[in-house]
Amino acid sequence: MNRNNVKRAMFMCIGVSILLFLFATTPVTLGEAVAGGAGEELKIPIGKPGSTADTNLLQDELHKWNKDMDVWFMLMLVAFLMLFIKKFEWGICLATLLVTAGSFITYTAIKEFMWGWAWNQEMVLMGVICSITVVIAIGVFLGTVKMWQYLLAGVLFAPAFVLIEWFMFTYLKGVVDPGGSMLVHMVAAYWGWGVILTLREKRAFDEPMNVTTHSVSFVWLASMLLWVLWPSFVTALLPGDQVNWGMFTCYMAGIGSIISAYIFCMIYEKKVNPLVYTYAMLCGPVAIGSPLLSVGPWGALLVGLIAGFISTTCFIYLQPRLCKAMGVLDVMGVHNLHGVGGWFGALVCAGIAAGSVNIISAVGVFVIALVTGMISGLILKGTRGKMDVLFMFRDDTDFTLWHPEPLGMKDGQVTENL
Amino acid sequence: MNRNNVKRAMFMCIGVSILLFLFATTPVTLGEAVAGGAGEELKIPIGKPGSTADTNLLQDELHKWNKDMDVWFMLMLVAFLMLFIKKFEWGICLATLLVTAGSFITYTAIKEFMWGWAWNQEMVLMGVICSITVVIAIGVFLGTVKMWQYLLAGVLFAPAFVLIEWFMFTYLKGVVDPGGSMLVHMVAAYWGWGVILTLREKRAFDEPMNVTTHSVSFVWLASMLLWVLWPSFVTALLPGDQVNWGMFTCYMAGIGSIISAYIFCMIYEKKVNPLVYTYAMLCGPVAIGSPLLSVGPWGALLVGLIAGFISTTCFIYLQPRLCKAMGVLDVMGVHNLHGVGGWFGALVCAGIAAGSVNIISAVGVFVIALVTGMISGLILKGTRGKMDVLFMFRDDTDFTLWHPEPLGMKDGQVTENL
Amino acid sequence: MNRNNVKRAMFMCIGVSILLFLFATTPVTLGEAVAGGAGEELKIPIGKPGSTADTNLLQDELHKWNKDMDVWFMLMLVAFLMLFIKKFEWGICLATLLVTAGSFITYTAIKEFMWGWAWNQEMVLMGVICSITVVIAIGVFLGTVKMWQYLLAGVLFAPAFVLIEWFMFTYLKGVVDPGGSMLVHMVAAYWGWGVILTLREKRAFDEPMNVTTHSVSFVWLASMLLWVLWPSFVTALLPGDQVNWGMFTCYMAGIGSIISAYIFCMIYEKKVNPLVYTYAMLCGPVAIGSPLLSVGPWGALLVGLIAGFISTTCFIYLQPRLCKAMGVLDVMGVHNLHGVGGWFGALVCAGIAAGSVNIISAVGVFVIALVTGMISGLILKGTRGKMDVLFMFRDDTDFTLWHPEPLGMKDGQVTENL
Repeated sequence: MNRNNVKRAMFMCIGVSILLFLFATTPVTLGEAVAGGAGEELKIPIGKPGSTADTNLLQDELHKWNKDMDVWFMLMLVAFLMLFIKKFEWGICLATLLVTAGSFITYTAIKEFMWGWAWNQEMVLMGVICSITVVIAIGVFLGTVKMWQYLLAGVLFAPAFVLIEWFMFTYLKGVVDPGGSMLVHMVAAYWGWGVILTLREKRAFDEPMNVTTHSVSFVWLASMLLWVLWPSFVTALLPGDQVNWGMFTCYMAGIGSIISAYIFCMIYEKKVNPLVYTYAMLCGPVAIGSPLLSVGPWGALLVGLIAGFISTTCFIYLQPRLCKAMGVLDVMGVHNLHGVGGWFGALVCAGIAAGSVNIISAVGVFVIALVTGMISGLILKGTRGKMDVLFMFRDDTDFTLWHPEPLGMKDGQVTENL
Repeated sequence: MNRNNVKRAMFMCIGVSILLFLFATTPVTLGEAVAGGAGEELKIPIGKPGSTADTNLLQDELHKWNKDMDVWFMLMLVAFLMLFIKKFEWGICLATLLVTAGSFITYTAIKEFMWGWAWNQEMVLMGVICSITVVIAIGVFLGTVKMWQYLLAGVLFAPAFVLIEWFMFTYLKGVVDPGGSMLVHMVAAYWGWGVILTLREKRAFDEPMNVTTHSVSFVWLASMLLWVLWPSFVTALLPGDQVNWGMFTCYMAGIGSIISAYIFCMIYEKKVNPLVYTYAMLCGPVAIGSPLLSVGPWGALLVGLIAGFISTTCFIYLQPRLCKAMGVLDVMGVHNLHGVGGWFGALVCAGIAAGSVNIISAVGVFVIALVTGMISGLILKGTRGKMDVLFMFRDDTDFTLWHPEPLGMKDGQVTENL
Repeated sequence: MNRNNVKRAMFMCIGVSILLFLFATTPVTLGEAVAGGAGEELKIPIGKPGSTADTNLLQDELHKWNKDMDVWFMLMLVAFLMLFIKKFEWGICLATLLVTAGSFITYTAIKEFMWGWAWNQEMVLMGVICSITVVIAIGVFLGTVKMWQYLLAGVLFAPAFVLIEWFMFTYLKGVVDPGGSMLVHMVAAYWGWGVILTLREKRAFDEPMNVTTHSVSFVWLASMLLWVLWPSFVTALLPGDQVNWGMFTCYMAGIGSIISAYIFCMIYEKKVNPLVYTYAMLCGPVAIGSPLLSVGPWGALLVGLIAGFISTTCFIYLQPRLCKAMGVLDVMGVHNLHGVGGWFGALVCAGIAAGSVNIISAVGVFVIALVTGMISGLILKGTRGKMDVLFMFRDDTDFTLWHPEPLGMKDGQVTENL
């Protein structure tokens, strides 16, 4: 107990030190901050051309302003998409916030101080896209590391994301991925898998993952609203005249996976597993990321229909086999939505528009994400210290006020929530 | 059991066949989809005039882009507005998604391939407005048909919606209904009633509709956010210079029904029934749909005050009498919000702005919606097959993972949730 | 019982009378409403200059249109931020709606009929900002007055808000508070404290405030989404070229308090109290309100880090001491987020940009809010009549359908929710 406290204090110091280091290298003394204010360098410049002849830069930034907020909205909803384990809900919210904080400030610091980017909608959008990627990624190992480590995971992830961004769009030429099938979804899945492959937390297999009606109702809410907000995410960085197109193909792909995920859930198991369906119904929007502007609405519907089928199939048949074969548990089944959906989108787009460079990109993303994830996993394992199984997947480890609640009725007996 | 499986498979085949038929008549082969992409016909054209002298077409489309997403957001919230029956929550979400998928692709297919419309914000907005209308409409018979039939209901509804749209705005001239009091709310209520009048599911009367604190808290969340997003829905297709007006009258009407629904709930029953209040507080926004731009903010407040009174009165006094008289149950009481609110809005607008054509329109909408609903009800009844009462209003019919939970305490005893 | 009914009827009459008085002084007869419609005075004028050379007035109004809706969205979320007391959830929603209705129509009536403002985005934004302020303020005394009194509280608050607005921006010159650290947060905290200081409801101290997993999960949802939508609130009235700046400093301040609130929750109590954290993580956005455009992103991060520390410290150490010393309970701890966060923001901005006028403004706001709150508290106390402790913090007082639910398991026994 005492030793734990010492460790906790130690690692907090590390976290704070990282922040202080960031400060030290940046103009954050109050005086300089004032100067920054006086310099007005954050105002949107007037009289600059926009992304099309019909809008100027300011109008483009105002349109992106709303999408920026939508992507932050989605980031928070991802937490609720993962909130189904009855005794581990608040922790997912806190983990989401901490990993977001760590990744966002690290990403923006790298971009401002190492790459020389100015603060504008493109930079902040890429920052929140980096953060939402790692929020998805922690779904692979949620509940198996300590709370403060999510802050660290965010700090570790951001440089990997910058590297992959560079690989896809600077090193390679001609990669087509406007909506992030590769940059977001594949990266999330394989960076997360990199972490579990080195973390090797076999005790995760023993987690019963009990749910209640409303823990799953929150998942429905999150999934349905993520589906709705998705066009803001895939069109965030597009020129003004292409955002309609991206919205229409995104929704049509989403409708495709709504239909096929239902049909294949029924075919495979005669009933719908809500924790498969609420995820697989999002695989159309995941897969349409790369071919977003390479198909029309009915082509997008077809992409979505196939994506929903693939994701449902992977959740039900691939997940148990793959996890058993690798000896590690993908806690939220991230690979079955983001991994396979990302591959499918990248390859479809290679087939109909981008050509082989998209295949090279997808393979490269797979390798870089996996390797950087494995390195991060080693660091997380090394800094985690001992973690009793009683501290895994449990809100009462991290929070006051939590108490067990009745879970359900079995044979007229009330059963506890553990 | 075995026979049920055969039926299920059969009807799924029908659903898939419909989709395949749609495909067969449309350019959805991958090759053509690519061609569609290459043709760039989904880009917003540059240099076109907008809805006012102060905006061009691209800027108008960008403004509608956000509203389009808001209406999709509202569509999903309607599911949570109906999610109060403790043992039937997930099913409402899935039903909403399936009926949306069926109606949206049918509507857009009709508009593109039969009416020759291009994909732009107007078309997609009308598509999602069609879908939200049928999502409201299924509230009338929720829980009394099989899950796959919601997909079918969506396919059946879309042509009826297209017909009513044609009747109101092409056959008739001068109908005033910018915010859909008739086109959305009356259609939803009477198409749904058409369905129950032929479905004639008397066993729905026996449903106890047990609620829990949080099943109703989700309803509060949905109702309050629907109230907030409503201006996007009523102003979706207006010229840019009229959207302020529509927002202000919509919010003032909403404030009117917030106040009067409370006062009349208290007068009638001394306490507030949350399942009356959360619905009736939306009747101002329902009723303001037609007279949206025919009143100022204080006139809108008055419309809302009266609408909240009417809706509350109908929920408490009309609902039991009407359902008894007709021998069918309006499960969610859709008529008391959308039916009477729609009539009131249409008639107010006839009185102060549109004249008798709005009355003709309202009567025509009532008749067409009822008749097309009755036809759909016959098809739903014919394809439903046997449905044991144990399969009605129950998530465990359609889902794995669901289990009964403790509902409440009575005399110190924990009672089960059935 | 009978006497209670008489009182209830009496006070409802008062409420209705206020409304009728508002009507009597305003053009709300149907005839005039039509005239209002015909006059088209609510259309956005065409061809007017905007807030920058790059946008015209119509385009500015369209951008504010979305923010207006976001602020309404936040207003509703504030209800869910306070929804943690298991047996008092629906009441918070209804109270939020009633206080909103009362304050919004009173504010807009004053501005239109006494100040001669026209209905445009600035007026309606100020109206909803007035309403969200009083929604925050009722958090100080939630559960200790009768339901209809929230409508009255809204009516009483609006003139106080108008007075403070006049004091800050007309009487004083040069006050810097773009994001409302003073106008919203300090006003909310001290007006609310004014109310409890005269209401003096000591029985509030006895409320056990039992929570359940999901009552707190709703708080997480509300807090995380409020954090996301906050930039719309702080940039609502800014010129178009400054909204990026306000968004970036707002999010960076929010990230600061996400981090420091976690660190100090852990340092102080070794575990995180979710009802401290979900509030304190918003203190960055509260505090950045005044210095919004006086710092850069890294300065904002620093402001947020300090704000999160201050708020956490006040929740844990100041709240019990202050409430004991004053003999009254700040039910939701509003002062520890909005009061101290508002002071901190106002003073930081005084230090780096605005100078002493911000200090004068803050002191003036403190005094006026407190005094007008005390007057309102007297009126609320005088009109409340007797209120048995069994009617405090309880949904079953105001609602049908509510019933106690199992709260938790203690030593294998199911405990009731009271």
